Amino acid sequence: MGIIVQKFGGTSVGSVERILNVANRVIQEKEKGNDVVVVVSAMGKSTDQLVDLANQISAKPSKREMDMLLTTGEQVTISLLAMALLEEGYEAISFTGWQAGIETEERHGNARITNINPDVIKKELTAGKIVVVAGFQGASNTLQITTLGRGGSDTTAVALAAALKADQCDIYTDVTGVYTTDPRYVKGARKLDAISYDEMLELANLGAGVLHPRAVEFAKNYNIPLEVRSSMENERGTIIEEEAKMEENLIVRGIAFEDQVTRVSVLGLPNELTTLSTIFSTLAKHGLNVDIIIQNTTSDNKTTISFSIKTGDLEDTISILEQHKSELKYERIESESGLAKVSIVGSGMVSNPGVAAEMFAVLAEQEIEVKMVSTSEIKVSTVISGEHMVTAVDILHSAFDLSKVTARV
Amino acid sequence: MGIIVQKFGGTSVGSVERILNVANRVIQEKEKGNDVVVVVSAMGKSTDQLVDLANQISAKPSKREMDMLLTTGEQVTISLLAMALLEEGYEAISFTGWQAGIETEERHGNARITNINPDVIKKELTAGKIVVVAGFQGASNTLQITTLGRGGSDTTAVALAAALKADQCDIYTDVTGVYTTDPRYVKGARKLDAISYDEMLELANLGAGVLHPRAVEFAKNYNIPLEVRSSMENERGTIIEEEAKMEENLIVRGIAFEDQVTRVSVLGLPNELTTLSTIFSTLAKHGLNVDIIIQNTTSDNKTTISFSIKTGDLEDTISILEQHKSELKYERIESESGLAKVSIVGSGMVSNPGVAAEMFAVLAEQEIEVKMVSTSEIKVSTVISGEHMVTAVDILHSAFDLSKVTARV
Repeated sequence: MGIIVQKFGGTSVGSVERILNVANRVIQEKEKGNDVVVVVSAMGKSTDQLVDLANQISAKPSKREMDMLLTTGEQVTISLLAMALLEEGYEAISFTGWQAGIETEERHGNARITNINPDVIKKELTAGKIVVVAGFQGASNTLQITTLGRGGSDTTAVALAAALKADQCDIYTDVTGVYTTDPRYVKGARKLDAISYDEMLELANLGAGVLHPRAVEFAKNYNIPLEVRSSMENERGTIIEEEAKMEENLIVRGIAFEDQVTRVSVLGLPNELTTLSTIFSTLAKHGLNVDIIIQNTTSDNKTTISFSIKTGDLEDTISILEQHKSELKYERIESESGLAKVSIVGSGMVSNPGVAAEMFAVLAEQEIEVKMVSTSEIKVSTVISGEHMVTAVDILHSAFDLSKVTARV
Repeated sequence: MGIIVQKFGGTSVGSVERILNVANRVIQEKEKGNDVVVVVSAMGKSTDQLVDLANQISAKPSKREMDMLLTTGEQVTISLLAMALLEEGYEAISFTGWQAGIETEERHGNARITNINPDVIKKELTAGKIVVVAGFQGASNTLQITTLGRGGSDTTAVALAAALKADQCDIYTDVTGVYTTDPRYVKGARKLDAISYDEMLELANLGAGVLHPRAVEFAKNYNIPLEVRSSMENERGTIIEEEAKMEENLIVRGIAFEDQVTRVSVLGLPNELTTLSTIFSTLAKHGLNVDIIIQNTTSDNKTTISFSIKTGDLEDTISILEQHKSELKYERIESESGLAKVSIVGSGMVSNPGVAAEMFAVLAEQEIEVKMVSTSEIKVSTVISGEHMVTAVDILHSAFDLSKVTARV
């Protein structure tokens, strides 16, 4: 008995039939005696249809107006889900983001939540109602409708769970949980019973797109236990929570990977204190995300800076660097596309300094050249040739015994 | 130079192409140096599609949730229209009903506007922007999203025009103006240059569905000149305003008609003071609208009450009267369906007492039996057999010289 926040993504509410299925999931939780808050996304392809309408009018539509347009998607879902719950005889009420007290920055397309006023929801929960909230959206303090950007509905769910001091936040999705690696590529991929916030953050940031990193961060900060589970199948998912309860004997918890990586090298830079910050603040100002960064000083007291980006950003990156050539004072730019990033993640690494070395050895044995390396306390990322990506993931998965089920401690 | 409110209905914004056409209309007005506020409805069939989704979930969906669902329709249109205006290089901003300061009762599906706070719109107009507002919707003071019911977008436009002290309110629709009668039925039907609020009210109430009576009432109360005109063709429409400027020599301005009328008679009622109010308050309580009412006391000191209703309401009406038989103390109910109502409207009638007599004479000449009559200062309505409806309208149109163009005074 407590407050449970449930989140259902676009696929889970993609048709009337699926919305009725979600209603049953919600009712199951309500019948256990819990207060239930449900966060939903727009129905399946409806966001794509709205984007298509906008693109028929403008190649680059106003972000404010896109927010006005796209937020209708979740508003359709919340009303239909509330109707479905009412039809089953349960008291239910739907709220848009602004009605639910979700306050954000006034930044369109990618606003951050600044505050949640949970009074309206609390009042309805106290009255015994199931509360259905539109994910992905909020309003600024000047009453502009905003959206939270990618993974926004996850963030809404976790933020509401925090504001309501919920006992759990269940993220229903189209997979059954968090896997050691992507099961579409690696046969032995295994669903994890539990994973820590930090490990999930690393996996999420590394492209294991089950759960958005912003949502995980939020959950970590407010210590909200998350469960990622399937909206279609009735099986336990993966619990994301603090480390204590984890399968501690597992050093590496998962392997993330992504292709379409490009390495850019800027050669012959002056060896000055501000060189690094100038390059990356220039790129950031133009909205270009850089991932791994390596700096190397050469014998002639010049510096080479290499960094990895998404291949799709290469053209913009080169063009911006060229525009700022006089300011940055580099000699030339080199780039290599067709690369991939493969990373091992696990909080057990902190106390196991040999893990990175083992990873490199495994890759070397397969004659896979490591082109860039980046490490954190719980992660080792390598950039390799894209053609070796799947092989690398596969052999690392075996090498670190990820297929084996380990007992929960 | 002033403030112009323009309203475009669902057909006028039914596709991206039509929204672009509307944008051009708006820009034409802006280019004249006016401040422009545009009120739009949901795109063409989109409301029907939303209703269909709701009906797949519930045969009688919650009115509150229907308001949540349906208001997304206008929100889509406003954002797309704002994008189209921005794309053409004009500053524009869209607002939902609640953002535009439209406050209503907390009554779902059919709320009345209680107040408009025009500050937000005024601020944007002052900044030179074209303001696009979602019609048909508002919010209660407890921040529930409401809809204004039938003709709601017209009402939004006129109410905004009143609150902004606009110079004119143009209602763009799929007809070119207000006609003497329905041109689909009567060849000689002629577009009126001007008509008074009261005449328009009678015509609107009588089924000439160009403009909703609520909107006309609002315009009359605040003395807002309306123009009904085509969104497709670039010709003058019909101006609705106070009488002074009217074509005063025309006694009858228009002929309205509707079929699917049923007459219900309740016979053998006790002749008591409260009989009338009891019957009609009972029917009103169940949401049944009654049109013409005739009371007749018979020689045995009993009363017969006849009234006309929409044929679709017959079953409910009979069932409610039967449920309350002991209370109403009537002897029996009779009903006749397949009837039609034909009405002549014109403010010139006030000073021409013979108009009703002339109408009856014209009908009698064609051997059309008048089954019920109702008159107001500017209207005479008759209920006749449905099979004679079109003939009656046609001969009345000729008899009252409505095909002739008269000069404006």
